[in-house]
Amino acid sequence: MRKKILFFFDTDERASPFDISMAYDAGFDVVVPYSSVTAESAKGLVQDAIFPRGPEGVKHTSFFLGGADVQEVSKMLEVTKESMFGPFQASIIVDPRGANTTASALVAKVEAGLAELGEGGLKDKKVAIIAGTGPVGRVAAELCANSGAKAFITSRREEKAKKIAAEISERCETEVGGLQASNDEETLEAVKDADVILSTAKLGIRTISKEVLEQLDDRVRVVGDVNAVQPTGVEGLDPNDDMKEFMENTYGIGALAAGNLKSKVELELLTQAKEADKGVFDHRNAFEIAKDKLK
Amino acid sequence: MRKKILFFFDTDERASPFDISMAYDAGFDVVVPYSSVTAESAKGLVQDAIFPRGPEGVKHTSFFLGGADVQEVSKMLEVTKESMFGPFQASIIVDPRGANTTASALVAKVEAGLAELGEGGLKDKKVAIIAGTGPVGRVAAELCANSGAKAFITSRREEKAKKIAAEISERCETEVGGLQASNDEETLEAVKDADVILSTAKLGIRTISKEVLEQLDDRVRVVGDVNAVQPTGVEGLDPNDDMKEFMENTYGIGALAAGNLKSKVELELLTQAKEADKGVFDHRNAFEIAKDKLK
Amino acid sequence: MRKKILFFFDTDERASPFDISMAYDAGFDVVVPYSSVTAESAKGLVQDAIFPRGPEGVKHTSFFLGGADVQEVSKMLEVTKESMFGPFQASIIVDPRGANTTASALVAKVEAGLAELGEGGLKDKKVAIIAGTGPVGRVAAELCANSGAKAFITSRREEKAKKIAAEISERCETEVGGLQASNDEETLEAVKDADVILSTAKLGIRTISKEVLEQLDDRVRVVGDVNAVQPTGVEGLDPNDDMKEFMENTYGIGALAAGNLKSKVELELLTQAKEADKGVFDHRNAFEIAKDKLK
Repeated sequence: MRKKILFFFDTDERASPFDISMAYDAGFDVVVPYSSVTAESAKGLVQDAIFPRGPEGVKHTSFFLGGADVQEVSKMLEVTKESMFGPFQASIIVDPRGANTTASALVAKVEAGLAELGEGGLKDKKVAIIAGTGPVGRVAAELCANSGAKAFITSRREEKAKKIAAEISERCETEVGGLQASNDEETLEAVKDADVILSTAKLGIRTISKEVLEQLDDRVRVVGDVNAVQPTGVEGLDPNDDMKEFMENTYGIGALAAGNLKSKVELELLTQAKEADKGVFDHRNAFEIAKDKLK
Repeated sequence: MRKKILFFFDTDERASPFDISMAYDAGFDVVVPYSSVTAESAKGLVQDAIFPRGPEGVKHTSFFLGGADVQEVSKMLEVTKESMFGPFQASIIVDPRGANTTASALVAKVEAGLAELGEGGLKDKKVAIIAGTGPVGRVAAELCANSGAKAFITSRREEKAKKIAAEISERCETEVGGLQASNDEETLEAVKDADVILSTAKLGIRTISKEVLEQLDDRVRVVGDVNAVQPTGVEGLDPNDDMKEFMENTYGIGALAAGNLKSKVELELLTQAKEADKGVFDHRNAFEIAKDKLK
Repeated sequence: MRKKILFFFDTDERASPFDISMAYDAGFDVVVPYSSVTAESAKGLVQDAIFPRGPEGVKHTSFFLGGADVQEVSKMLEVTKESMFGPFQASIIVDPRGANTTASALVAKVEAGLAELGEGGLKDKKVAIIAGTGPVGRVAAELCANSGAKAFITSRREEKAKKIAAEISERCETEVGGLQASNDEETLEAVKDADVILSTAKLGIRTISKEVLEQLDDRVRVVGDVNAVQPTGVEGLDPNDDMKEFMENTYGIGALAAGNLKSKVELELLTQAKEADKGVFDHRNAFEIAKDKLK
């Protein structure tokens, strides 16, 4: 039987051992890592990779596009798709630094949590994504907006928040907002009537203090955090919390609880791509998988 | 059973996904790619690679020497052979950027095409290799000359044509000529009484225009092209043509028709090297395989 | 069944084909090489590698720390251990440029040789390690000292010998000495009453001349050499000698005789680490394996 080969293009200096391990566990026979890949260099690599095995063989070849440089990964995806033609098609997994699977797992858990609380789904909920201009925040905003929520992202600089919110909105059925939240006062203003608060900051940044949380009204809300290392994004929310009422009416989903689902989602995403002849496997597929795993 | 390990030394910045895929499809269990390899660095790598498995184990180890820098690949081959000694021998595949297998497939198809037309083989045929100073052109010239043809290569600069023709001749039983062909007039002069015309230019260079082809006499001839992307090397010759009479008495072999055979040849070359305990597997083996596949 | 994955961190520019081959022969399903790794970059790689497979899966993940930069490998080991926590533990093999397995094999052979000659083990023997400041010399000194021998290393510079002897002593139950041996006279003085003489110099350096050997008294002694290429470290000692009396009462163990055992030791070390859930596999384990193989 033909070997399942995954060409792994990483924009980082070293291809991620996380994704390589996942890919082998998903059943790929061979993972060939390439590091410091750019959209430009990806072009030649893809053209070189799709021909040798012929139209039948290429069905057993896949590409994984990853790395911290999300913009470059986007360009790489375009180039990769363009470089395939006729019967020379391969499946493509897109998960830059795990952003797609992380955001999918977190948003799916929030949605399931809301349902569990009798609050329905994300539809018409107000979702505040704090420090939401990074890879995970962008994808989370898109998934929330396309699930019917009124989502907005915050940044320490208003200009950046608005610019990136506009970029996200282009891929959404409803508009995503952008707000400045550079201190407790602004953060409180941003989150005070939100049903869902997600903290998607970089490692080591506390986005929501206990003081802010204590000033919130008594509505039921779900708070999620993607940071597992102290200081976490949301004060008082433990990385292992899984819909724990860590403050009155405030239910927390910690990074490890979401991360556990994220791993399952990535494994399934890779497995689906491996079995598929072609197609793009990105945050949309990841979100469907995440919701499915929580049923 | 011992794993079949292939150490892949590529002079390019990134080891070719084409050859890696091929090697796995040929049954290697493991391909270990090294990029930006030089003859100098190859020495240490080979010495390091041949010892760990012992005299019996090394029979299951192979080397693949590839990359765009054909001169460096030649030096690498010398170094690789020198670094082996006594019972520590491994098989070595040489196919820089596919030049050996591409040239072998093209020349074998030309030879079979001539036979099909009742024109006999390559013996005593006049073969013009246009833009023949690159990797594919050099190997094609050598294979033609050693098949008894009167072969010559052209270049846009006479000096280069003569210099490289002399280099090729050193490896041939008969001399290979070198001519300047920098415009239609010179090209016509070069190809006008040729039985075989091969275009081995780089991507994107048109070597033979329709005007030149129309001025040729009415002898039966075979024309081959290694370029599959528009503009192809020979005007009017489609990459899929396989001995199609695309002009009167002029039979064309396009890049995809030859490329199809090239892939089979490389797969077989890799398979033979994998099964062999030792030995060099280069254009000579590739040419034998190509001719065999066409029987 | 879960694949056995080995992440191979090499401080060298190119990950060693020797260790990669060994690892596959030891039964690892996948070896993922990373080159030019530093302690700093290892941190992120380890953290990235231990999570994806979960607490059960990580038992099937291992790390190999190698490369010529022994100091960096030491730091890398600390970082690698620190980056693991709770149930996220993996086995770690440490063998920078084969120093641990080479020294272990050589010292084990010396010990077995002494026993064979009726001289008992290493206990209370005087062991001179000439040019002993490099990776193999350091480990050999430690193993000898911890086997009860009175070991000392020499260097061409006294200061260096004393400094490194002090470093080695910190890891030993008894003190290791340091002496200058920059010419025949000093070397003779250093080795004249030694029961064991080991030459652990770099390739191409003759440490002990025939003149020195001829001036030694008639006690029974074992002499070992790690250099297989001419000029070897000890004049008159053939790389294939295996307890051969190459001078009266002087029994030699050449580099190939020791190297043969070294390969077996490394293979077993890798196999043990592969089967283990966690733990460090370094020169201590290698020495136990080496002694065991000689029983």
